[in-house]
Amino acid sequence: MKTEKFSKNLSMMMDFYSAAAAAHAFDGGKPDEHIVWFDLSFRKNPKLGGYCITAGLRQAVEILEDLSFGEEDLCYLREQGCPEAFTEYLKTMRFCCDIRAVPEGTPVFPNEPVVRIKGPAVQALLIETVLMQTVNFQSLIATKANRIVRAAQGRRVVEFGARRAQGSTAAVFGARAAYIGGCAGTTCAEAAMALEIPRFGSMTHNFIQMFDSEYEAFRAYAKAFPDQCVLLIDAFGTLSSGLPNAIRVFNEVLAPMGKRPVGVRIDSGDLAYLSKRVRRTLNEAGYPDCDVIASNALDEHIISEMIRNGARVDTFMVGEKLITGGDVSYFPGVYKLVAREKDGRAEPVLQLSENVEKIVTPAPKLLWRLYDMETGKATADLLTTEDEDVSALREYRLFDPDYTWKQKTVTNFVARQLLEPIFEDGKRVYRFPTLADTRYYCAQQTDALWEEVLRFEYPHNYYVDLSRKLWDIKNDLIRKLRNGESAE
Amino acid sequence: MKTEKFSKNLSMMMDFYSAAAAAHAFDGGKPDEHIVWFDLSFRKNPKLGGYCITAGLRQAVEILEDLSFGEEDLCYLREQGCPEAFTEYLKTMRFCCDIRAVPEGTPVFPNEPVVRIKGPAVQALLIETVLMQTVNFQSLIATKANRIVRAAQGRRVVEFGARRAQGSTAAVFGARAAYIGGCAGTTCAEAAMALEIPRFGSMTHNFIQMFDSEYEAFRAYAKAFPDQCVLLIDAFGTLSSGLPNAIRVFNEVLAPMGKRPVGVRIDSGDLAYLSKRVRRTLNEAGYPDCDVIASNALDEHIISEMIRNGARVDTFMVGEKLITGGDVSYFPGVYKLVAREKDGRAEPVLQLSENVEKIVTPAPKLLWRLYDMETGKATADLLTTEDEDVSALREYRLFDPDYTWKQKTVTNFVARQLLEPIFEDGKRVYRFPTLADTRYYCAQQTDALWEEVLRFEYPHNYYVDLSRKLWDIKNDLIRKLRNGESAE
Repeated sequence: MKTEKFSKNLSMMMDFYSAAAAAHAFDGGKPDEHIVWFDLSFRKNPKLGGYCITAGLRQAVEILEDLSFGEEDLCYLREQGCPEAFTEYLKTMRFCCDIRAVPEGTPVFPNEPVVRIKGPAVQALLIETVLMQTVNFQSLIATKANRIVRAAQGRRVVEFGARRAQGSTAAVFGARAAYIGGCAGTTCAEAAMALEIPRFGSMTHNFIQMFDSEYEAFRAYAKAFPDQCVLLIDAFGTLSSGLPNAIRVFNEVLAPMGKRPVGVRIDSGDLAYLSKRVRRTLNEAGYPDCDVIASNALDEHIISEMIRNGARVDTFMVGEKLITGGDVSYFPGVYKLVAREKDGRAEPVLQLSENVEKIVTPAPKLLWRLYDMETGKATADLLTTEDEDVSALREYRLFDPDYTWKQKTVTNFVARQLLEPIFEDGKRVYRFPTLADTRYYCAQQTDALWEEVLRFEYPHNYYVDLSRKLWDIKNDLIRKLRNGESAE
Repeated sequence: MKTEKFSKNLSMMMDFYSAAAAAHAFDGGKPDEHIVWFDLSFRKNPKLGGYCITAGLRQAVEILEDLSFGEEDLCYLREQGCPEAFTEYLKTMRFCCDIRAVPEGTPVFPNEPVVRIKGPAVQALLIETVLMQTVNFQSLIATKANRIVRAAQGRRVVEFGARRAQGSTAAVFGARAAYIGGCAGTTCAEAAMALEIPRFGSMTHNFIQMFDSEYEAFRAYAKAFPDQCVLLIDAFGTLSSGLPNAIRVFNEVLAPMGKRPVGVRIDSGDLAYLSKRVRRTLNEAGYPDCDVIASNALDEHIISEMIRNGARVDTFMVGEKLITGGDVSYFPGVYKLVAREKDGRAEPVLQLSENVEKIVTPAPKLLWRLYDMETGKATADLLTTEDEDVSALREYRLFDPDYTWKQKTVTNFVARQLLEPIFEDGKRVYRFPTLADTRYYCAQQTDALWEEVLRFEYPHNYYVDLSRKLWDIKNDLIRKLRNGESAE
């Protein structure tokens, strides 16, 4: 049987049309003469609220550091019509792009460049698919996790979806993104082990079923895992059977060992109602420190409702609706050419579209976030050309790029440039923080957003403005293209 | 920088609670004394119609053939509280389960066992997560692809979602599942290469943007790929610019080489309207053989509407809404204990639930599909105990397991048992067909369903009945449990 495995590295993870475009851009061996700039951004974020959390950069970087084409790859590309000179180039290609990116865990907004690539067109085109795939997926999950964690209002949220994740990379890197977004940890052993994410556990219905009674199952579990005793109490009736059996086992097995239970989990029935009854009974039995853990197809909407109902839950275990994005299964990232080098200078490029919101702002850009010095809150983001420096200014006049009469002068701000250098000439120059630090940074940066921007439904539109200079470049190009080409 | 990579194999791809349950089931070294049966099935399939296409078995089998725990894994499990005797067992564990499964590409229905595991409890528990993950994901995508392909009514559907897939395994094995479900192929180079799936291509907007004009871009592309020339014609106006430029390049570049164009792609605007106009113009220009290719956030609903509108599309390229499941992002598979060995015999096990539809039918089972000999159509499925043989019967009295007065005698049928042996005592005994054969089998088996079952909305409920013997086992157990345990 020929095995159906993949993959030595992810260099061939591309839509073939990227290879075709790259093959042409190679142009017989002068890749350095075709320098281009690409932006990875997203246009809108349906159902995921007013902002997104960017994630996945680290895996994207690792994939790019691994970029190389083996004989099998080159042979396949030749078979598919790529010219020999191109595949010869790939054989010894040295990755030499400059990449800037917004650090993982940062809240970002529509139309902001999250990753910016400068380099030979042949290379920028080759990495399109894998870069988008990695950043799109982890940003989706980090954003969803961030929403769910906010819905839980300080209660613990644990990622619990490996069984229904969209494959193994989705399970592992989804757990990672969920952790960045604010989850306390994961139940997936591989993810916890490989990425040093805190590991949470529980007990399965299948474990209970191997015994003749729930009581025996609880006893066995408590004896085997006295330090992490979480009992699943809904198998035969949460209040009539599971809870009394659990308390009995806490008393009979754990107490003599001097151990305290970690929690009881409820996985069916009305979780809000049951949690209140369970909490009261646990308190009365002398276990106020025993957590009430809830699971069962949860998401941010159900958790919000439960809390409104007065649920007494300490930990939410969230599965399939977190690890797959649930009601939003993909992140609408796009990868667009914004400039190409001409006579040693960056010439901005713009793609018109009948849909105005689809027009990507041209030119190599910097992305600034203005924080109010008094409140610490983020006031607005600003896109500028590369040679503008907002950090030194004391006062700045923002204006809306679409409704230009909407203007606002901001003072007393600190401006932080968000696009950090990641690769220079193909060498990584960025040092990744630990995952725990990225998670902390994400929480802190989310806190820096106004309540109105954080709102779940119909959030306030955060200002993402263009500098005057960038606005002129964009509108000049639009005017030129409109005159030069007729639209339908 | 410690790398954030995984993984040598997928043995640690499990919810930790499976390891905890397995550690207990190991029970100090007598795994052979705890033989159990598990069923992997699904309860319902929201928004995916009346049936599902099962897929992912091959990858599940490859993962199980690779099952082994390295020193790092064992060390992690010990740190997390698993006893030494258990991790010692894992170090040299020989996989020895018997597995039966429904072949990939088969339409299956709620409550049918898709995979059946018999073996030591410790092993059956260890493989729960990875088995579910693999079968859940690929079945989701195969089912979605099957729906989209049916919506296209004979037109070609190409999988085109790598950029927004939920990670690299999702992209590759999603492309595989989409092909099984009926897609003509994929645009993902890695998937096409690794799994020998037909590869389709196109042209990107980014390619066009590297040129000074659309015409120049088309010329360059046609010269570089004269045998697979698909031009993207919507960048500056499909009818006013893209189409005339494409025809000009077909005439100027391809015709002198004696080549014919493959297609033109439309990626924005009203695809139904544009396709009709484009088709007419291509025909008039002497290119009736040039395909009209449509893309842009398509799914089965949009494609159905387009065809109702009289769209003249030959190929639909379907991206994010196929490779992620779109409006249904996960497959609700469950993995339940159905029997355990007692005194050398299989003792059926049942888990009660307040929700009647959550009760999994106990006992080791066989799954039969009854085909009408005259029409070739599938009449009903039947679950029986292992010692029942339906294939020899000339007449069978079906009855509804819930509404038992609903009965029906079927004659003139062929009964096929669907759960084929895959592993025996841990050795694979099943030979996988080629992917192309699996795809063909899927189409053929889908065709064997009645139109009423295939219907997109409110499909007819297909009969999945229990044999009298199995029905008695289930209802006796329910009665016993109801009497023994009080419900809330």
